[in-house]
Amino acid sequence: MEDIFRKTYPVLIRNVRIGKEPQEIFLDGTGRIGEIGPDLARDRAAETEFIIDGNGALVLPGCVNTHTHAAMTLLRGYADDMVLQDWLVNRIWPLEAHLTGEDVYWGTRLACLEMIRSGTTAFNDMYFFMEEAARAVDEAGIRAVLCHGFIDLGDAGKREAECRATEKLVAHIRSLNNPRIRAAVGPHAPYTVSDEGLRWCADVAREQGIGIHIHVCETEKEVTDSIAARGKRPVAILDACGILTSRTVAAHCCWLDAAECRLFAERGVHVSHNPVSNMKLATNRAMPYPDLRAAGVNVTLGTDGCSSNNNLDMLETAKTAALLQKFSWNDPTVLPAGEALAMATSAGARALGFGDGRLEAGSPADIILVDTKSACATPMHNPVSNMVYACNGSAVETVICNGTILMLERNVPGEQEILDGAARAAAALVARAGQT
Amino acid sequence: MEDIFRKTYPVLIRNVRIGKEPQEIFLDGTGRIGEIGPDLARDRAAETEFIIDGNGALVLPGCVNTHTHAAMTLLRGYADDMVLQDWLVNRIWPLEAHLTGEDVYWGTRLACLEMIRSGTTAFNDMYFFMEEAARAVDEAGIRAVLCHGFIDLGDAGKREAECRATEKLVAHIRSLNNPRIRAAVGPHAPYTVSDEGLRWCADVAREQGIGIHIHVCETEKEVTDSIAARGKRPVAILDACGILTSRTVAAHCCWLDAAECRLFAERGVHVSHNPVSNMKLATNRAMPYPDLRAAGVNVTLGTDGCSSNNNLDMLETAKTAALLQKFSWNDPTVLPAGEALAMATSAGARALGFGDGRLEAGSPADIILVDTKSACATPMHNPVSNMVYACNGSAVETVICNGTILMLERNVPGEQEILDGAARAAAALVARAGQT
Repeated sequence: MEDIFRKTYPVLIRNVRIGKEPQEIFLDGTGRIGEIGPDLARDRAAETEFIIDGNGALVLPGCVNTHTHAAMTLLRGYADDMVLQDWLVNRIWPLEAHLTGEDVYWGTRLACLEMIRSGTTAFNDMYFFMEEAARAVDEAGIRAVLCHGFIDLGDAGKREAECRATEKLVAHIRSLNNPRIRAAVGPHAPYTVSDEGLRWCADVAREQGIGIHIHVCETEKEVTDSIAARGKRPVAILDACGILTSRTVAAHCCWLDAAECRLFAERGVHVSHNPVSNMKLATNRAMPYPDLRAAGVNVTLGTDGCSSNNNLDMLETAKTAALLQKFSWNDPTVLPAGEALAMATSAGARALGFGDGRLEAGSPADIILVDTKSACATPMHNPVSNMVYACNGSAVETVICNGTILMLERNVPGEQEILDGAARAAAALVARAGQT
Repeated sequence: MEDIFRKTYPVLIRNVRIGKEPQEIFLDGTGRIGEIGPDLARDRAAETEFIIDGNGALVLPGCVNTHTHAAMTLLRGYADDMVLQDWLVNRIWPLEAHLTGEDVYWGTRLACLEMIRSGTTAFNDMYFFMEEAARAVDEAGIRAVLCHGFIDLGDAGKREAECRATEKLVAHIRSLNNPRIRAAVGPHAPYTVSDEGLRWCADVAREQGIGIHIHVCETEKEVTDSIAARGKRPVAILDACGILTSRTVAAHCCWLDAAECRLFAERGVHVSHNPVSNMKLATNRAMPYPDLRAAGVNVTLGTDGCSSNNNLDMLETAKTAALLQKFSWNDPTVLPAGEALAMATSAGARALGFGDGRLEAGSPADIILVDTKSACATPMHNPVSNMVYACNGSAVETVICNGTILMLERNVPGEQEILDGAARAAAALVARAGQT
């Protein structure tokens, strides 16, 4: 059984459907989709090394999670239902002060396991000890864009250290030469990074041709504080520092105004909507999807870290996005199921530069098979509606990333070892921090 | 294997935990919990007919869904993302006009299967052809309170027919003599039932000692229309007609004012919060949980029907309730995980009169075992948080209702037959209605 996993070879997927159409999919053994059609078995028999019988499963492109802090799985459920500052200052930061690279490895392994189980094949990650995150991603077989969370708080010494940490991570990831793993720069937010820091990040990203991952306008206070202290809204500062590019993923964006939505469209910025986190932390405004959509911005979906969600299920996030947008803008026609599913899949793939999330020959073989022999998929008047509104990540049976099988019929190799390692790391972290 | 299901006998559940405490649970074979303690095997060995090894599972009281229209599973995904009136008039009602009793049977079977799979052991249902719903509930082994949706639109002839339909259902359910199935009266809403109809329902409920299930103040329009047409808010009308009692479950209640919340507390009315449906249909205001809680109202959770949710997963609903309340009232401390889980379980049991949802000797044996060997349950700093925020109904492994095993290690007998029957019924319904 283990032989099936961890390598790439020609695979024929039979007895599946794309939408309502029965199809077969041939993966060419190089990490790409070779062919899709109703009957490939005869032509592809000689090349095929393994056949997956989908048992009527629905095929979707893998989900792409465009904003998370993967290793925060270790903090899942550690502190909830608190006011943001109290939560950060008294619970999260004291624990994070004791984090080790090994913790980040195990937290990221757990995150990758959870993402694979729920149908995510790529994610955009910002945290610390990211070389260890890269090791976890390498082993898990998933795709990721990894950045060091760059925070200088206006301090030149801190800034210097963050620049070196960023350079080190970018060089390390380049040295891995793994097509699934990319580096980005990660200026944390306009209120935690100086203009000098933001400009340095923008320059490095441009010179190296890599992405930028940043938090933007999650809370109203960020906007009012920025205006009070600097006379400018955060987006104006970001634009002046060169942060707003077509390689940029801006997370949250709850408090963008209409002009800023248009500016994002002009600059080609990708937005990551994080509805579960925004509701749990009570941001008091939903990301303005109608304005972003009207402006033509590529809007994607993220879960945020597990301490503010508390899971990494992108189908749950797609549903919550649709619900939140309808409720917030008082219009049940806003963000219909098809748009929500595209945000969770193809829009995310484009934002991270991992293809375009289409199911067609030549595209990356990042695909998931969703069980249709279940209550959430019955009846199936409209497969997209079943996926977004009725099912969640637990309906995913089989996951393929870069042509390699990561989960087959709900079996992920090494799962128990990962769960045990992460549970041990989390318990030891809490013990070290002297908290319970 | 089939011998394990469909009957009640003494069962010992080993290797489980309640909260963080390892426990064993003895079910006495009469439908009740006999004993809970850390080591019951020696004392109970002679009586025990079957041992469930929980493999470290977390035990919770079964979830109680206090507002749904179960057979609407057949309409799952049939029409979404539409304005309420357009959706009802052009999609839902034309289809419902072709519903048969057999459809309601299959839709309710599918609903019961989905509820069992996701850890729900009791529900409060309002729909049509409810004798057929009762047949489905009887076979499924779950608990339910069933009512005929009573709508007279002020027409005396219609009212007469609805009174007879209600009486017939109440008599039928009484004749079943099944402790798991109860009748209620179901005046649909103050805007669809005349004062005479409401008074008749209140009288029957009082005389028969049965529950009342009603929609209250789901939309703002209901309130403004009522004031415009009758000079009174809907709640005043309900109170004048005797509908507000301690046997009443009022669904939605988004537009209650603070005085109405206090009145509900005085009258002992149970409220069913339906956050997913309210967001999907854009009610523009969340149920005022802070006011209801301050007044001391028993607030419970419902999914609503599958055409406005689109599933019956009560753990998902508990999470969405916590998220919506925090977001709506702009306070992340509102509706913490423990309150959300109690709403989904014990508060619902009290509302429907199925015990009090406590895990203790003498309580109904309505319990669920949740897998802890999974990513959503790892790490487990706080089991309640894992259940509400990280896991969903798919983590439920074993379900026991009234002492009878309904699902064991995710195996529900007859599942495929139910899925097939419901899918056939849904397809035939759409074909009969001439819609696609």
